Amino acid sequence: MESGVGTAAVPRGLPYYVAFSQLLGLTVVAMTGAWLGLYRGGIAWKSALQFNVHPLCMVIGLIFLQGDALLVYRVFRNEAKRTTKVLHGLLHVFAFIIALVGLVAVFNYHKKKGYADLYSLHSWCGILVFTLYFVQWLVGFSFFLFPGASFSLRSRYRPQHIFFGATIFLLSVGTALLGLKEALLFKLGTKYSTFTPEGVLANILGLLLACFGVVVLYILTRADWKRPSQAEEQALSMDFKTLTEGDSPSSQ
Amino acid sequence: MESGVGTAAVPRGLPYYVAFSQLLGLTVVAMTGAWLGLYRGGIAWKSALQFNVHPLCMVIGLIFLQGDALLVYRVFRNEAKRTTKVLHGLLHVFAFIIALVGLVAVFNYHKKKGYADLYSLHSWCGILVFTLYFVQWLVGFSFFLFPGASFSLRSRYRPQHIFFGATIFLLSVGTALLGLKEALLFKLGTKYSTFTPEGVLANILGLLLACFGVVVLYILTRADWKRPSQAEEQALSMDFKTLTEGDSPSSQ
Repeated sequence: MESGVGTAAVPRGLPYYVAFSQLLGLTVVAMTGAWLGLYRGGIAWKSALQFNVHPLCMVIGLIFLQGDALLVYRVFRNEAKRTTKVLHGLLHVFAFIIALVGLVAVFNYHKKKGYADLYSLHSWCGILVFTLYFVQWLVGFSFFLFPGASFSLRSRYRPQHIFFGATIFLLSVGTALLGLKEALLFKLGTKYSTFTPEGVLANILGLLLACFGVVVLYILTRADWKRPSQAEEQALSMDFKTLTEGDSPSSQ
Repeated sequence: MESGVGTAAVPRGLPYYVAFSQLLGLTVVAMTGAWLGLYRGGIAWKSALQFNVHPLCMVIGLIFLQGDALLVYRVFRNEAKRTTKVLHGLLHVFAFIIALVGLVAVFNYHKKKGYADLYSLHSWCGILVFTLYFVQWLVGFSFFLFPGASFSLRSRYRPQHIFFGATIFLLSVGTALLGLKEALLFKLGTKYSTFTPEGVLANILGLLLACFGVVVLYILTRADWKRPSQAEEQALSMDFKTLTEGDSPSSQ
């Protein structure tokens, strides 16, 4: 039920799902803070509490902000394409910087404590996701924001960008769950099986993290909620490979 | 580049990706077996080794077979729709039964050992995924295989079925990673950080599990790899809601 070029009505249901996603995202951030505050002594850079900077930054950056960056094209449906692109790119920059702080925090903490780095599945997934995220941003920037790429190149890269964007987001959620599990098992050990309040809170946090991932993915993939076609996109969607080769569009 | 009704050429690239997915899937199953054999004493029903039935069954059922069931419509492109549907449904039945054996194994093992059930994030996610999988199968069966549903109902439910199918599969992969991590931390504890062979093997297994999920998702979501439209699907894709209301199609 798309309505062609120009200002289109917002699809029925979309605002509720977006509102729900934001509620979930903010709940997840707040709950991560509550978990760290209630059961892990809170947050500080210059002490053993430095570790706690890691989960908070990762959840704000690579879960909440990354998720919201993916939703930009669904939420800002009638703004100029270029404005939406810049917002999408900027949100990812913020997410990246916050995640970088979170990464520095954990490496720094390990160094102070003399712990080994990068031995766990969580850390392997984390480094992989972070690298992919950086590469995806660079490639996305060069194709879509840097004015050099042709319509044809953009049209061929676009579905790949979307697929890998969604995949990196889902891998981020998965990595967060692994990290949460690790933090629980290291501290609680066999006490985990006695349904301690921290364990139950963290389990609920884990489920909400997964829910946030699913809701963002749902909004992103629903065909009739895609951004209405505008001039540039229509050209892209026709998938003619050579016709516009070398032609560099200045979007809107 | 879809080619309308009837026998269509297999899209370029698809067979390689499918072959790669199968190689990954079989490697994951073999590696799970190797991990359990080399480091966990192998598999048996009537001993403490009963636990090991759980990861093996889950990986065969809810990862490999579930993933392959999702690919059926991409691989069997020109067979009758009904045949493909039955194969899709049957693979899910096999996956479900094998996963059920895996579930019984772990509950039985916990009971013998006097361990608590359902306290961990892995178990919460697992029960959720297993329940969703069962509901999805039931609903899918009543809409698509049971002859009662109209074109209109099927066309409205179809995108939801696909989205939730992919989501349940991804949640299964995530749950498997959580379980793997749990098994490692319970047994290895701080030895995990010394890069023991078991830890490294299991980390690689975790990455390959995630890779299998990504490759299946890629094959599933690539627009130009979708099954070519046949008569029934064309009717569905037109999305006319009332025209065929009450009309029950006999597929093919």
